[in-house]
Amino acid sequence: MSAENIDALIVSNTDPHNNEYVAPHWRSRKWLSHMNGSNGTVVVTADWAGLWTDSRYYEAATEALDGTEIELMRMSDLDVPSIETWLKTHMEEGQTVAFNGTDTNFTQAKTWLKSFKPAGLKTRSDLDLVGPLWVDRPAPPKGELFLVSDDYAGKSIEAKIAEVREKMVEQKLTAYLLGRTDESCWLLNFRGTDIASNPTPYCYTLVTLDEVLFFVDPDKVTSEAREKFEAAGVTLKDYDEIEPTLCALDASTRLLHVPNYTSYRLAKASAHCAQFEDRAIVTDLKAVKNATEVAHLKQSLIDDGAAMVKFFVWLYRSLHAGEEVSELSASHKLEAFRAEVNGFRHVSFESIMGYGPHGSLNHYSVDEESDVPVKLENIFLIDSGGNFLHGTTDTTRTIPMGEPTQKQKDDYTLVLSSMLELLLLEFAEGATGAQLDGVCRQPLWRHGRNFKHGTGHGVGFGLEIHEGPQNISGTSVEKMKLGMITTIEPGCYRPGEYGIRIENMVHTVLSQETEFGRFFKFENLTFCPINTDLIEPSLLPPNQLEWLNAHHREVLEKLSPLLDEEEQQWLQHECRPVVAG
Amino acid sequence: MSAENIDALIVSNTDPHNNEYVAPHWRSRKWLSHMNGSNGTVVVTADWAGLWTDSRYYEAATEALDGTEIELMRMSDLDVPSIETWLKTHMEEGQTVAFNGTDTNFTQAKTWLKSFKPAGLKTRSDLDLVGPLWVDRPAPPKGELFLVSDDYAGKSIEAKIAEVREKMVEQKLTAYLLGRTDESCWLLNFRGTDIASNPTPYCYTLVTLDEVLFFVDPDKVTSEAREKFEAAGVTLKDYDEIEPTLCALDASTRLLHVPNYTSYRLAKASAHCAQFEDRAIVTDLKAVKNATEVAHLKQSLIDDGAAMVKFFVWLYRSLHAGEEVSELSASHKLEAFRAEVNGFRHVSFESIMGYGPHGSLNHYSVDEESDVPVKLENIFLIDSGGNFLHGTTDTTRTIPMGEPTQKQKDDYTLVLSSMLELLLLEFAEGATGAQLDGVCRQPLWRHGRNFKHGTGHGVGFGLEIHEGPQNISGTSVEKMKLGMITTIEPGCYRPGEYGIRIENMVHTVLSQETEFGRFFKFENLTFCPINTDLIEPSLLPPNQLEWLNAHHREVLEKLSPLLDEEEQQWLQHECRPVVAG
Repeated sequence: MSAENIDALIVSNTDPHNNEYVAPHWRSRKWLSHMNGSNGTVVVTADWAGLWTDSRYYEAATEALDGTEIELMRMSDLDVPSIETWLKTHMEEGQTVAFNGTDTNFTQAKTWLKSFKPAGLKTRSDLDLVGPLWVDRPAPPKGELFLVSDDYAGKSIEAKIAEVREKMVEQKLTAYLLGRTDESCWLLNFRGTDIASNPTPYCYTLVTLDEVLFFVDPDKVTSEAREKFEAAGVTLKDYDEIEPTLCALDASTRLLHVPNYTSYRLAKASAHCAQFEDRAIVTDLKAVKNATEVAHLKQSLIDDGAAMVKFFVWLYRSLHAGEEVSELSASHKLEAFRAEVNGFRHVSFESIMGYGPHGSLNHYSVDEESDVPVKLENIFLIDSGGNFLHGTTDTTRTIPMGEPTQKQKDDYTLVLSSMLELLLLEFAEGATGAQLDGVCRQPLWRHGRNFKHGTGHGVGFGLEIHEGPQNISGTSVEKMKLGMITTIEPGCYRPGEYGIRIENMVHTVLSQETEFGRFFKFENLTFCPINTDLIEPSLLPPNQLEWLNAHHREVLEKLSPLLDEEEQQWLQHECRPVVAG
Repeated sequence: MSAENIDALIVSNTDPHNNEYVAPHWRSRKWLSHMNGSNGTVVVTADWAGLWTDSRYYEAATEALDGTEIELMRMSDLDVPSIETWLKTHMEEGQTVAFNGTDTNFTQAKTWLKSFKPAGLKTRSDLDLVGPLWVDRPAPPKGELFLVSDDYAGKSIEAKIAEVREKMVEQKLTAYLLGRTDESCWLLNFRGTDIASNPTPYCYTLVTLDEVLFFVDPDKVTSEAREKFEAAGVTLKDYDEIEPTLCALDASTRLLHVPNYTSYRLAKASAHCAQFEDRAIVTDLKAVKNATEVAHLKQSLIDDGAAMVKFFVWLYRSLHAGEEVSELSASHKLEAFRAEVNGFRHVSFESIMGYGPHGSLNHYSVDEESDVPVKLENIFLIDSGGNFLHGTTDTTRTIPMGEPTQKQKDDYTLVLSSMLELLLLEFAEGATGAQLDGVCRQPLWRHGRNFKHGTGHGVGFGLEIHEGPQNISGTSVEKMKLGMITTIEPGCYRPGEYGIRIENMVHTVLSQETEFGRFFKFENLTFCPINTDLIEPSLLPPNQLEWLNAHHREVLEKLSPLLDEEEQQWLQHECRPVVAG
């Protein structure tokens, strides 16, 4: 930094596509701070360093930063300044802030530039100060692509390209850069294996009115895939050709790109065109699942529920037999049960196996260092999912490992009641994620409880576990649309004691149409028993209790055929009706 | 337009401060289109003209545009393009769009410039094409200022200036332009009389670390006000001096201004400074009411409730006596009852007197053309308020004028139940307006009903009827804070039949603090009987019914001392308990 006259350096785990999960090659912030969560940014100055992360990672970051000089900046707290404000306050006019423009998205870069300029701070974006210091940096990945047949995708590549072009013409665009990797996967009906737990490989697609250029490392493309792409009129280019291709675009090009997913470098490469910064055309097409996708997803969640039941039976059986089970061994076992399902590709994210106090660390992921034995006491939070050819699943269950306390039962029942608020809601077309979020939290709020994460997120079809545009949170103004697939996952966390979360996936469907417009509701898609030993029946309204009992009859019916006799018996007991309190 | 080579002209009713209610001098859009609502923009091209307005004004605008060539563009509908999109689609590259930069706020101007530029459209902002054609254009207003004593404001001018400077230092600012007129009123403890129903006169304040410059037409300032301002260290300047003063600022000035309330012209005048575009410091200070303001406001709502009761008694008595009453005469009578209250300045907005079908026109305001007789049948929606020295009120009641139908009762009860959802809610600190909005709408949604306006808005203290930053709506991500004053006003509208809305004002207070943080609730401030003949008791949950009956005992107790015997008897009947259905 001092050789280059840099006074502050911003280091993130971002890659050129602003992927949520990035390949090890781009995990600069982890290399620098040892902090492993999905959200975190380090700022380094000559005499100070800080890590900004959100409340999901406070406890995990505290542990990771222990023994380093890096201060934890709790960015979800009201009194903690943003990175921009901190830099404006602590740096002097004329000093220089650096970030890596190749791995920083355009939106982020603009925010920084706009914020630093009036404060008199200079910026440099052409340096990679971390790379040269990082011995043993992993190489960029070389994972092979695989194709998704039309029987699963529900729509051919040709049909999707035609749909995209139709929207381009409507919006008077002549080119569209698909910068987020899952846009290319959806459009060209393939998946990748570059990033663990994430089916979207490093690639770009550029769609014009007469060409589709697909930029990807050619080593990743099988001959079968190459044939299919070529038959659909798609031209293959090397991944690195994207920058010169953008530079060579005619100045009259009316180019759509999404600044959140275009790196600062590529935005500059296409700056001579008329740039339209708007949401990606594929985002909206992809979020509304077609009937084929929904039908497959329903089956995948039944298969997934059966795997979960097999796991629960194994877990309790092993522990009662005196066998040792740890969070990590449980995680491997659960993955093994999922792997038995036809069409299994990989887990859809690193399982969160939160036994006891670990359950209160939101988005905790177990590794060899953090692993603890699971015992027949306290409660166990398990948040996991599979990426199957026929859909991506995401299920959280919290189960008792011993005799639950009244506090655990109250917390659990209020979390369950919160989830059921949304499962039983009818809402007007146009309702936003934030409106739905408020409805969900009522039972917890009424009892002086709350959780500091969003209530739910969209899920891709065999694609990313967190897929926009919709989500359910206090600040989401995105409207919930028919055909969207979303999670509902309220929680209640007591640091040092335990954590509770219950999560189902839902499908937005039409409920009724009146003179006031259309009204939607959520169709439940998850069939996995919801533990009832943890329920305090007096806290559950009658309509919710009724729903739960009917739901468990359906769980039993749908999962039993996939289970052996021991598992069926266990499920039968687990699905017994709850009696009103 | 053709003389100046203008291909499209945008005409709004905006003034240099982006006031919600503008003096007649600036009502260019009304002059052009006859449309009188608070939201509407006309676009004129060589062969077409359209008026964009939101769903509150669809019916009113349809009536106003009848017989003109101007097409109504229903901007709340999903399939109607925005003005920007429409212009980009219908204009050719190289054509010119004009708007008036003096009366257009900087945010709006930037949006237009940013949107038009990539589409190849040119812009002109230095022309006033409407002014020269507008014969008999009203002159800018000359209303006198009056002072608010510290006994009402709860804080001296000096204390407020010190508070503002403290925030400026925290944010490293050296100057702060108060562009929105109510910021100056709050800071300098005065009100104005420029705009009907609105106490904020045309003025600017520029606060630096050692000066406070107040820009206002000197004819408006009484000698008493002049003395008070000077004693507080405030220097008076002519209104028109703001532009040269900004031009003369030193280039090292770190100037805060709010682009929503700074005209494009003034933003350009200060472009040589370091401009910080952020929220106004006064916005947050003003929104959190102090104890003196809250205490006065509580009294003003009791006085206001008594005026409403006097009006209801007069209305029913007159009609039963066979006297003629129209919406307009009722509006005048209600204003007369409010005017009897000590401290009355003016109505806080043009009353909405919506009898029968007129009740379904959201934000309908009665005038001589639209006036209809009020009869002893159907229902009557009355939304009105007073601007008193001791507070600004906003109350909506819907009352039966004959025997209500079951549909009216069901609609009414669901609206009431929606309001009570929020009055009985507890919510976590940090909850956004959109989360609260979702909670409110549940009873209506569950029964296939909805309303197309926000659920509530902030209210100024003796200031504007719509005051930010908070509001309750599906897209408000603003957090509800302790001390804020907000309306809750759900509705249900059946075009051609009737409209229902019930509106109370509430104060955000602390409910409890637990290990999960602080939890807030709303303290009800409005004491005006809520009609119970329109209630269908079977649709009201027991806790809401209980609240209503207890509330009516309090209404009776608080208002009776302000009423004569006939009014007391009527109120006694009106406040009788509702029996569970």
